[in-house]
Amino acid sequence: MKKISIAIINIGNELLLGKTVNTNLSWMGNELACMGMEVAKAVIIPDAGEDIRATLKELVGKHSVIIFTGGLGPTKDDITKKEIAEFFGKELIYDDSIWQDMLTKFTQRNRPIPENNKIQAYVPEDFVVLENSRGTAPGLYYQTDDLLLFAVPGVPLEMKHLFTNKIKPILLEKYPTNGWFLQTLNTYGIGESATAELMDDIVLPEDVNIAWLPQTGRVDIRVYGSNSEGCKQVYAELKHILHEWVWGENYQTVAEKVHELLTANNMTLAFAESCTGGLVNKLLTDMAGSSNYLLGGIVSYANEVKENLLNVRKETLESFGAVSEECAKEMAEGLKAKFKADFNVSITGIAGPDGGSEEKPVGLVYMGFAYRDTTEVFKMRFTGNRDSVRLKAAEFVFHQIVKSLEK
Amino acid sequence: MKKISIAIINIGNELLLGKTVNTNLSWMGNELACMGMEVAKAVIIPDAGEDIRATLKELVGKHSVIIFTGGLGPTKDDITKKEIAEFFGKELIYDDSIWQDMLTKFTQRNRPIPENNKIQAYVPEDFVVLENSRGTAPGLYYQTDDLLLFAVPGVPLEMKHLFTNKIKPILLEKYPTNGWFLQTLNTYGIGESATAELMDDIVLPEDVNIAWLPQTGRVDIRVYGSNSEGCKQVYAELKHILHEWVWGENYQTVAEKVHELLTANNMTLAFAESCTGGLVNKLLTDMAGSSNYLLGGIVSYANEVKENLLNVRKETLESFGAVSEECAKEMAEGLKAKFKADFNVSITGIAGPDGGSEEKPVGLVYMGFAYRDTTEVFKMRFTGNRDSVRLKAAEFVFHQIVKSLEK
Repeated sequence: MKKISIAIINIGNELLLGKTVNTNLSWMGNELACMGMEVAKAVIIPDAGEDIRATLKELVGKHSVIIFTGGLGPTKDDITKKEIAEFFGKELIYDDSIWQDMLTKFTQRNRPIPENNKIQAYVPEDFVVLENSRGTAPGLYYQTDDLLLFAVPGVPLEMKHLFTNKIKPILLEKYPTNGWFLQTLNTYGIGESATAELMDDIVLPEDVNIAWLPQTGRVDIRVYGSNSEGCKQVYAELKHILHEWVWGENYQTVAEKVHELLTANNMTLAFAESCTGGLVNKLLTDMAGSSNYLLGGIVSYANEVKENLLNVRKETLESFGAVSEECAKEMAEGLKAKFKADFNVSITGIAGPDGGSEEKPVGLVYMGFAYRDTTEVFKMRFTGNRDSVRLKAAEFVFHQIVKSLEK
Repeated sequence: MKKISIAIINIGNELLLGKTVNTNLSWMGNELACMGMEVAKAVIIPDAGEDIRATLKELVGKHSVIIFTGGLGPTKDDITKKEIAEFFGKELIYDDSIWQDMLTKFTQRNRPIPENNKIQAYVPEDFVVLENSRGTAPGLYYQTDDLLLFAVPGVPLEMKHLFTNKIKPILLEKYPTNGWFLQTLNTYGIGESATAELMDDIVLPEDVNIAWLPQTGRVDIRVYGSNSEGCKQVYAELKHILHEWVWGENYQTVAEKVHELLTANNMTLAFAESCTGGLVNKLLTDMAGSSNYLLGGIVSYANEVKENLLNVRKETLESFGAVSEECAKEMAEGLKAKFKADFNVSITGIAGPDGGSEEKPVGLVYMGFAYRDTTEVFKMRFTGNRDSVRLKAAEFVFHQIVKSLEK
């Protein structure tokens, strides 16, 4: 079997000007990794003819698969198709069926079709059109003896649709990846270098790879490669060495595990959020089906809300403040009185950058858990900026729920 | 003045395997754009010596500034420093002051220092150490006649700290960018191609650039370049042509504008979120200072929560369902009774992928606004997947608040 080498080219000024985060690359990288195909290189360039030409010149011959995203829209800065056609010495040919399809789509949406869109109906000769049912710009596919080239629009919804339904089947047919191993250990509570030290004695067999994938507040460790027996052994060894810190396998987020466990256990959940301000609820409602266990919650950003809706006592707020063990406890219990969930969780802390003091520094967070019969409160001091502190508090809460359920 | 050409190299398997979204690139790209410096190219490669060598070979000589992120940690896959040193023919020299500094940091955190970390104390000769007060791995800086090279850790907090305090001042000193123009028009309610059509007659003078920056549910249009007079004229013309759709200038998000307007107007806000499930609150509490106007809210994911906490009538839920004009109205009014904010906003809809029907399809969202004396309800049908529908609903709500305040 010929070895596959994938390069991704993301085209778009917005990616380099920092207006748009390149989620297309991470999404596609993950899809490919799960198919047993690694991305060897990604290049991000502007919507400029010379850059597209130079990048093609650099990558064609070195990689067996090239996937372009972006630059297939109708605005003036979208010139990918023209440049690719020129690079391979192909004419752009008008395809009336594409234009008719576009007319239908615009008519359905009750929108007039801008004349500009007509350039989307031109296709380089010998290129195959990948029909795009989620948008107006079709994808493209071109094949030579030693290259598969794809080009899809940069709009994530359209890119994902075309990748899943058109590109993926072609790649799997050309490069079957039986026997590929890929597993990820999710750890919590141990740093990257400490994990590495524990693993120092492990000798990696040929074609077994380890990658550290640090996330906010935790580290994932991936084992992958074509030597699936070797991978399996190394993975088992790691799992053993790190068992104290391993909370899951192959999860993208700990919220996913909470989602899975609560759905399976038929239990319910409610949150009273102060410093996380909706983030914890949001992370769970990101997932379809969360309504099966998540009752909802109260975002008690203002102290009056803590008093009026969560029955936190005025004296508690005056004597101990909103960021205190006492307040977290009363919030969780007040929440339980209203929601009667199996887990009634409160979060109150100082996310920063302002509001910290010597006694109560930025990063100090109290989290209360009111279960059926008892309430417990955890005090943590998280490091990092506002985003980090909020995310780490959310992850702590999720880890605590997982722990309780696994008891 | 010599022309600047910046290339960014992000090193990390996690970026190509899709475990981590490359926010370092977008953050740095935006910072540089605001300084009047464009990123010409970004390359994402694995933690592998051969890739680092090949990329250096490809970029050195073509770009005047090269910034590495990632690959400076202590784990086995971190080899950036060694490869850069070899490429420039430099020895790695042990710097005891770095090691002592690391010892102090670990002692402060009460953590034992892994022996692995010692490799972080080696520095290529002739390289300048950029002290990293946010982490253990220092940044590096190297200068030749036609190249400035920087290497910083990939941890976002450390990268941002080193960029802002070390790299930025060096770049601005070497490449002063007086006279650079960069402004962004934020539009809403018009598509990318429709804006392009309206702008068709505009002839761009030399050194004036336009970039379309499509966001979820809206389009930003950026004018930038070294011809600041020309840019100014084109920008004014665009603002005039598109005035019907322009809601702001130079905002990253419409949530920022809500934040600004509410802070300035001393008004308060509360949300009852069903399908957005905390997202709207989260987007505002992402920003420090949101406690000045955001009282909080109720995440009423379950119908009982709508009844018990928001006083939505049982009959309303039975006759019209939770996704209805009537329910949105009662949610907003129930919220007002509890929170008494200036804006009491409810959101109820079908985010999908399940739960849609012919009568109430996925993407149908009702949004209620209870002001002091009146309540109005908007009905929208948003396209896209779960994430898009939720985000578009949040953006709609924010746009509506901006409109009300500008009246």
